[in-house]
Amino acid sequence: MEDFNTIRIPASQMEAEFFRILLKHGFHEDKARICASVFTGNSVDGVLSHGVNRFPRFIKYIVNGFIDVDSEPELVHSAGAVEQWNGNLGPGPLNAIKCTERVMELARNSGIGCVALGNTNHWMRGGTYGWQAAKKGFVFIGWTNTIGNMPAWGAIDSKLGNNPLVIAVPFEDEAIVLDMAMSQYSYGRMEMKMLEHSMLDFPGGYNTSNELTCDPAEILDSNRVLPIGFWKGAGLSLLLDILSAILSGGLSTGQISKSQEEVGVSQVFVAFDIRKLGNFPAIQNTISGIINDYKNSVPVDKQTTIRYPGERILQTRVANLRDGIPVNSGVWDEILSL
Amino acid sequence: MEDFNTIRIPASQMEAEFFRILLKHGFHEDKARICASVFTGNSVDGVLSHGVNRFPRFIKYIVNGFIDVDSEPELVHSAGAVEQWNGNLGPGPLNAIKCTERVMELARNSGIGCVALGNTNHWMRGGTYGWQAAKKGFVFIGWTNTIGNMPAWGAIDSKLGNNPLVIAVPFEDEAIVLDMAMSQYSYGRMEMKMLEHSMLDFPGGYNTSNELTCDPAEILDSNRVLPIGFWKGAGLSLLLDILSAILSGGLSTGQISKSQEEVGVSQVFVAFDIRKLGNFPAIQNTISGIINDYKNSVPVDKQTTIRYPGERILQTRVANLRDGIPVNSGVWDEILSL
Repeated sequence: MEDFNTIRIPASQMEAEFFRILLKHGFHEDKARICASVFTGNSVDGVLSHGVNRFPRFIKYIVNGFIDVDSEPELVHSAGAVEQWNGNLGPGPLNAIKCTERVMELARNSGIGCVALGNTNHWMRGGTYGWQAAKKGFVFIGWTNTIGNMPAWGAIDSKLGNNPLVIAVPFEDEAIVLDMAMSQYSYGRMEMKMLEHSMLDFPGGYNTSNELTCDPAEILDSNRVLPIGFWKGAGLSLLLDILSAILSGGLSTGQISKSQEEVGVSQVFVAFDIRKLGNFPAIQNTISGIINDYKNSVPVDKQTTIRYPGERILQTRVANLRDGIPVNSGVWDEILSL
Repeated sequence: MEDFNTIRIPASQMEAEFFRILLKHGFHEDKARICASVFTGNSVDGVLSHGVNRFPRFIKYIVNGFIDVDSEPELVHSAGAVEQWNGNLGPGPLNAIKCTERVMELARNSGIGCVALGNTNHWMRGGTYGWQAAKKGFVFIGWTNTIGNMPAWGAIDSKLGNNPLVIAVPFEDEAIVLDMAMSQYSYGRMEMKMLEHSMLDFPGGYNTSNELTCDPAEILDSNRVLPIGFWKGAGLSLLLDILSAILSGGLSTGQISKSQEEVGVSQVFVAFDIRKLGNFPAIQNTISGIINDYKNSVPVDKQTTIRYPGERILQTRVANLRDGIPVNSGVWDEILSL
């Protein structure tokens, strides 16, 4: 939402600020460079909630000792094409990038691979790792558990996480990247809508009278966010949490929630080396054929564009690289003060 | 829904009838036995739509030549822990059982395995294969594409399938089995509700005036079923279809839809041998801990039971094995006439 409080920051300037701040907080230069690039990339792609808007909290977690800037993820257990890694509470994006690299290596060897990572920290935008793998020609499936932030179906308290799931495939020179949390709307989205005094397009949760509501303020009051597909998204969230915990040997949502801070989450990275499954251009043709057919859908009205997951990001990326990244001036002032 | 048209058929009697009919339609005895067992098991578990209610259509597809009773799935291409199989248009449940067995074998070798199966037929209830693998101690993730039966987000026509996704894990002596289609409600469910002249609990689609509706008759008229989580379930459906087609080398939803009948679908079976990842009792404890925490949710009201996916099936199974399977008498008469 752009208004008079929004300023445009060139990506290179944002990245330089992040780099400066990360060095100041003890990052080695090479790690600071990668981390600054992830936060800037997420912002360029329009995912400010896991880019510039989240950066101050990332620094706070370092200051508070939740994130160890020097930690490296390490292999704990290997079982063929599946590996368990310990994130040693290092920076989430660095751990996730490394595990994505590693799972591609496993897939190169075995067609498919899985890295399950326990004891890590928030990976920010899951889509980052989908793009990373798909741009190299891999199919990627990954997810993370989170702190409890969504109720079981029929419940009031939040025993489930919104556990984002990412599925990515190569497409032309870019990728199709689905990056979806199990809640219908994110807390960030609802907070933004509330500040704008506007309603959600669809019900996003229950109010304290146990009625579905489009009013973000009511949902933020009850904390009863709606899972996608009601009981279905709640069930999927539960299973993703179980898989995260048992595959990695790390913490479950319930265990993470015992602390008030989201620290020590568990993540799963799966990759397929599709070059091993057939002729790569032929596979690309199959994907193009599916997308062409999909985009030939009859729209509800002429104004509606039928988009595939990740398509809008490509447009946002072009615009933000050209015009600068739209940032709330208060957020930017906070960044500059770090 | 039980009424005066509902009769109770003992599982053994149902299985014997299915066995008789399958033999009559050219099945070899061993295959008839497995297939009868799958259709009976689905019915015992209360999934009549993919059990006894679906059986006549299964036979019709054999008579019409869509399903080849003698076909065996065959390995087409092997790439380490990933294999591509051709279903040769054999009976869907038999192909799926074989691929589930095979993917467990791959997982035993490599920790994880994937079998992608093209050119197969409807597997009936996806959960069948989740139970099959999880009861043997494996984690299972599988999905199928379908004929187009759900619109893209913002579209009128059905370019997407409802592409059921199954995730199963071992739990105590049974399993936790999530088996969910990407549409909020199945066509079968909406037809049943319409016949009962009752409304859906939540909006299940759009009417022809482009309004969300709980009226199943309006949705069956517009054919605009709602994806779970609106744009999210539509995106997930698209990605599951792409993965089905490119991993198996088989048909996509768009290609299947060129025929009026749902023939030659593509499926993906992934298994993890969790015994390779740690001490099995400890893993079971982790799952029990998560389920205990989940079931300790505060319910909206005292009448609400917080259930995990598959939990209700266990109760239905016990009741139907004890009391017989509730079947519409007209459906049963049709079975007897086959």
